This record gives sequence, C-alpha cells and structure tokens, in this order.
Amino acid sequence: MSSFSIANRLLPSRMRGVLFRHRPEDIWVSSKIPVPKLNEFIPPGTEASASASDRAIIWVKYAGVNRADIMQRDMKYPPPAHACDRLGLEVSGELVALGNETPDALVPPVGSDVMALVDGGAYAEFVSVCANHVLPIPRFRDLENDDQKFQLAAAIPEAYTTAYQLVRKLANVQPDDRVLVLAASSSVGLAAIELCRKLCKCETVVGVCSNSKVAYPAAAGATTVVGYLPEEAYRKYMETQYNSFFSVILDCVGGSSFNLLQKVASVDARWVMYGSLGTVRLASRVSIAPMLEKRITIMWTTLRSRSDAYKTELVRDMYAEVAPLFSLGVLSHPRIDSSYNLEDVALAHDKMRANQNAGKMVLKVRDYLVF
Amino acid sequence: MSSFSIANRLLPSRMRGVLFRHRPEDIWVSSKIPVPKLNEFIPPGTEASASASDRAIIWVKYAGVNRADIMQRDMKYPPPAHACDRLGLEVSGELVALGNETPDALVPPVGSDVMALVDGGAYAEFVSVCANHVLPIPRFRDLENDDQKFQLAAAIPEAYTTAYQLVRKLANVQPDDRVLVLAASSSVGLAAIELCRKLCKCETVVGVCSNSKVAYPAAAGATTVVGYLPEEAYRKYMETQYNSFFSVILDCVGGSSFNLLQKVASVDARWVMYGSLGTVRLASRVSIAPMLEKRITIMWTTLRSRSDAYKTELVRDMYAEVAPLFSLGVLSHPRIDSSYNLEDVALAHDKMRANQNAGKMVLKVRDYLVF
Repeated sequence: MSSFSIANRLLPSRMRGVLFRHRPEDIWVSSKIPVPKLNEFIPPGTEASASASDRAIIWVKYAGVNRADIMQRDMKYPPPAHACDRLGLEVSGELVALGNETPDALVPPVGSDVMALVDGGAYAEFVSVCANHVLPIPRFRDLENDDQKFQLAAAIPEAYTTAYQLVRKLANVQPDDRVLVLAASSSVGLAAIELCRKLCKCETVVGVCSNSKVAYPAAAGATTVVGYLPEEAYRKYMETQYNSFFSVILDCVGGSSFNLLQKVASVDARWVMYGSLGTVRLASRVSIAPMLEKRITIMWTTLRSRSDAYKTELVRDMYAEVAPLFSLGVLSHPRIDSSYNLEDVALAHDKMRANQNAGKMVLKVRDYLVF
Repeated sequence: MSSFSIANRLLPSRMRGVLFRHRPEDIWVSSKIPVPKLNEFIPPGTEASASASDRAIIWVKYAGVNRADIMQRDMKYPPPAHACDRLGLEVSGELVALGNETPDALVPPVGSDVMALVDGGAYAEFVSVCANHVLPIPRFRDLENDDQKFQLAAAIPEAYTTAYQLVRKLANVQPDDRVLVLAASSSVGLAAIELCRKLCKCETVVGVCSNSKVAYPAAAGATTVVGYLPEEAYRKYMETQYNSFFSVILDCVGGSSFNLLQKVASVDARWVMYGSLGTVRLASRVSIAPMLEKRITIMWTTLRSRSDAYKTELVRDMYAEVAPLFSLGVLSHPRIDSSYNLEDVALAHDKMRANQNAGKMVLKVRDYLVF
C-alpha cells in the first residue's frame, strides 16, 4: 500500500462500467466490475508489474466515444496485447492514485483534474492508465461551468493526439501545402482542420463530409467543404476540380476512395491513411502507375497499437503545442456533438454508427460512482 | 563563343548516336545527329537558356544501359518535359565544354575524366548535361587499364544514385534493419545490397533473383539470396520464412508482388517502390488491412522526373559517401555484366529484356568519334 500516493483502500472494490459480449446488441452497464489496480494491464513478470511505478488510476468524469470502440464491439478491432480489453480510449476526471516511482515530473500530482489517452477501459468509473499518458486539462477560455471543462477535456486525448500525429508528425503540413481532409466533420477531422490552419498556417484545406454537416468543417477553418454527391457525380466533381491538386491527404476511408485519391494527389504528395471506414478492399485491378508517376508516399498509421514510449512522446508534444492555443483562444473549443449518460452507451453508439454525429460524443460517467 | 570554356567550334557539328522510332525493331546508329549545344534542353526564355551557364558537354566513352531506356523505346516511359528525348541516362567520358558561369566549385574543370547522370541522350558521342550532375570518376583500386576505369564509371551514376536514394535517403537503413531487395542481381539491386551492408552497416539483407544469378547478390554481401521458385511455392516459402520480417523493402516489381510483400513486411516497415517491372495492376480486390495493422509506409519514387536541384543534391551526397569507399576498397567495383559496341545496342537491349544480365550493361561509344 505504501507504494501508492493514495492508498488503494481508499478506492472502492467495485465500480460501474460498460461490459459487452461481442454481439452488437449485448452491451450493458454493470456495477460489479472490479476497480482496476495500479498494476493491472502490465505484462506479468516485468519490473513495472511489481512496482506499478508507471501506472495511474483516474476517477472518470467523462469518457470520449470513438469509432474504434464500435469496431471493437463488432470484433473488427481487437485490443493490442497487454491492453485492457474493455471499451473506451480516453477520459477526463481526477487523478486519484499514482505509482510511487512516477517516471518524471511531467505527470500531474494526485488530486489534479486531468485527461488521458488510455489503452482500454475508459467506459467506467475508474481506469488504470500509463502515468505518462496523463495530461493536465488545458485552460479553456469562456467556460460555462466545471462540467463543460470535463466534457471538453474528454474530447481532446484521442482526437487531438490522432490529428496532431497526422498533421504534424506524419504529413508535417506546411503553409504552402494543399490539404484534403476526408470525414471532415468527425472529431479527428475537425481537429485536423484547425491544426492545419492555426498551428501549421496552411492556407488551403478542403474538407469532405455529408451535406448536413458542411457547416462544421467550415467553422473549423476549412477553405472549402465538399458535401457528398451521388458517387459518380462526386468522383467527377473531385477529379475536375482537384486533379493532381492535394499535396497532403488525410484519409480514414481506405479502399473505396483509393482510385479517386490517386487522381487528386499532387506530385510528391504525402497521403496518411489512418482508417478504412469505407472498406479495406481496393477496387478490382487497381493501377499503381499514378503512385510512381507522382512519387506519392502513403503512410498507414494507427494509435492504439503503438508502444507506451511512442504515445508518451506524442501526447506530450501534442499538449505542448495545443494547450497554449486553447488558453490563448487561437483554437476554438473542441466541438461536442452530444453527451450521453453511461447507461445510454448503446444509443450513443447507434448515433455514431448512423454517421449522425459531427464532432465528439462523450459519455457522462461520474454520476454513477458507488462505494 | 566566349561564354564557353572551350569554344563550340572545337566540337564537330555532327556525331554518331542512337536513334529509335518508337517501335521495338526500329533502333539504329546514325552518324548524322547534330552535336548538342550547351543551351539545348533548357526551357526557352529562361536566363539559363541564354547563358547556358549551368550546362556542360561530355565527350562520351561509355554509356550505361538502363531498363528505363527500353521502357522509353517501348513508349512506356516518356521523357520528362524539357529533357532530351533520346535514349541513355548515364555516361562516362571527358568533360569538353562548360558554361562560363558554372554554378559552383564542385563542378570538375574542362578536360577532366568524368561521369554524369543525364536526363537523356547518353547513347551518343556527345551529350549535354546539367553541369551540377557531373562528377569526377572515383579512384577505383586495382584497375586493369584506362578502359576499365571508364566502364566502371559508366556503371555508377544511375545505379548508385538510385540505390543511394532508396537505401540512404528514403528507407534510411539502420544497422538493425532487415532489408529485402527484389531483383537483387540488377545493377541497382547489387549496389543497394552493398550500400546496406558497407555504408549502413545493416546485418540482414535478403536478395531475391533468378536461380542462375544468386551468386552475385551473395558476393555483394546479401546475407541470404532466394532464387525464384514456381510462383505458388515461392509465395509459400517467403510467407513461412519471412512472415512480418522485413523492416525495409526495396521493390521494383510493383503490382504482382504486392500481396506477398504486405505479408513479409514488419510492423512500421518502410517499403520503397521504384518500379513496376511485374505489372502496375494490383491483384483483384487487394485488402489493405495489413498495411493499417502494421503501420506500413510505402514511398513510390522515380529519379529521372525529379528537378535538377533535387538531383544535384542527391548525386553529390551519393558521391561524397560512396567515392571514398571505392578508393578504400570497402566497396567492390560495380559489377559489369557486359559491354557492347554502340552499334549493337539492339543486342544489348534484347539481353536485358530477357533478364539475362546480372549487374550493369554498358555501351562503348568513344570508338565512333567522327569529325
């Protein structure tokens, strides 16, 4: 017990959280889930598992909803080895326990309001996380109340870290780049657009999303937003307007748009593919001749499966560049599409499945605390 | 005349060189080709075209044969705009004319023995090149005679610059990488293997080539060389032996090996595709799921279409790192497969078409000088 900043016995032994049974209809909130210990989800036999020195426990107020959660529920996105296999990849809340050999001074002290990128289990009252992935909550401007602060903070870790990785680390967007953002009204899409414009000073960002949502990428700074047209018309429009135009493509659609994106990519384009929402299959007998002629680079990427060390550097770099822009008002608040109580998790997933959200959906967890 | 280091009038007005008519059978040597002037192949109206300050003329001794020449002859690889549209991309010989405002001190003086990467027209007695792409000939060890020096020098510019770009600039091969080299007995393949082992100190390089040629990649330093098996057996062997093994793939085959290479690529692999000798078409309905799961990056690249500035930096960086290794004997001589007289260019191409060469084929040009 002496190895924790607050003793484990101050935490309840059980908590409410979301369970599921790998069938879309089987998802429910249980109050009988064991509260994670600091040394959970650590490879057994390692030094870390003995001391739990690099883990932390967060008392969750809000958890972000991500498409990866739904894919995991549908058995299409298995959690990486040694990660918690329950749903939920990001939280805001209060840091309540910390390994006593906390790796470095950048980890906030126990009692802080924090947000964190977690490798699973965020849909619950308490979650065990890598201490180095815990971040202070940025100083948002013009907050209505404390609840709003935690809602916004739950919208940051996954979306902004992903967008930061795409825009800054992989594509390394420059002012004279011409960026195409697919699914531009998703939480990652909106964050990517704002980071391109405000952080990277990029002039030209074109977003693509459903007709009903074009206002949101425009508000985030997209120079132009293209609503979806019937497939053939959409393809013709894009090819005509943007033939060999885009030096950067941020693509979560995957196979179904591959041929079109080859055409709108410029010479030396950097194309980051971070999902395959359309399909993982390419069209029949795709030609890669344009890829060679235009010397295109495609970087396929994911976040959850990365090493703790990679994520530590990434979330901290993101925080160092992004948090000041929130407090200065350079970046607007992350757009919260909707907030659901934890019990309504299935409704939240249904809305995201139907592509009806624009921005981040969050689950309110804190009201369910039971000792 | 005063703008050239040696006057144009010292050069003949006509020369022998190779012409072709875009049909495989129509290729011949003509003695009636105008000798290029310093200001040829420069966009008209630019300052450069007036002064020819950044061009040079080389009196050619040997020209290297490249697969790109054959593809151009077959109308499958059109020369880039403003490039000479005749065949041949690299030469050795004597520098005989130089624009008087030579861009910098790194350009060898008139009268030097040189080698050069050229953007077309190397199959001829004289060729106009960008002065910044002219390099001194490395100090090769244990030369048999002067003729051998020029043969070896004609084997360097295209193969070693391409291999250097793949290995050092794009894949950035490190000692702990595991590299797969396709077409490992080609001149680029052999150069890439030696650069991986000797320059980048990479332990594990696996080459793939025809059964009759496995000795050459092995001699260049490949840890293992795999000869081609019947297609199905080859695929099974590679998948079993090298499942998710290679962190770097150097691929000039393109579409036909795409599925197999996805399987043998490791997590975070860098895959450089610099040709599509197999086919530019992918197999039907390829899945890109492994690309996402393994976070693979594919860099498609070509050399000829790049800007003069890019090539200047590349050939000079290559020279700075590679030339000393030749004079120290760390790198062995480039392997010369065979040397043909210029008149036998069609025979040389036939041999390369039949994939019967291992290493560089060169054309001997100098004997044909006529004033």
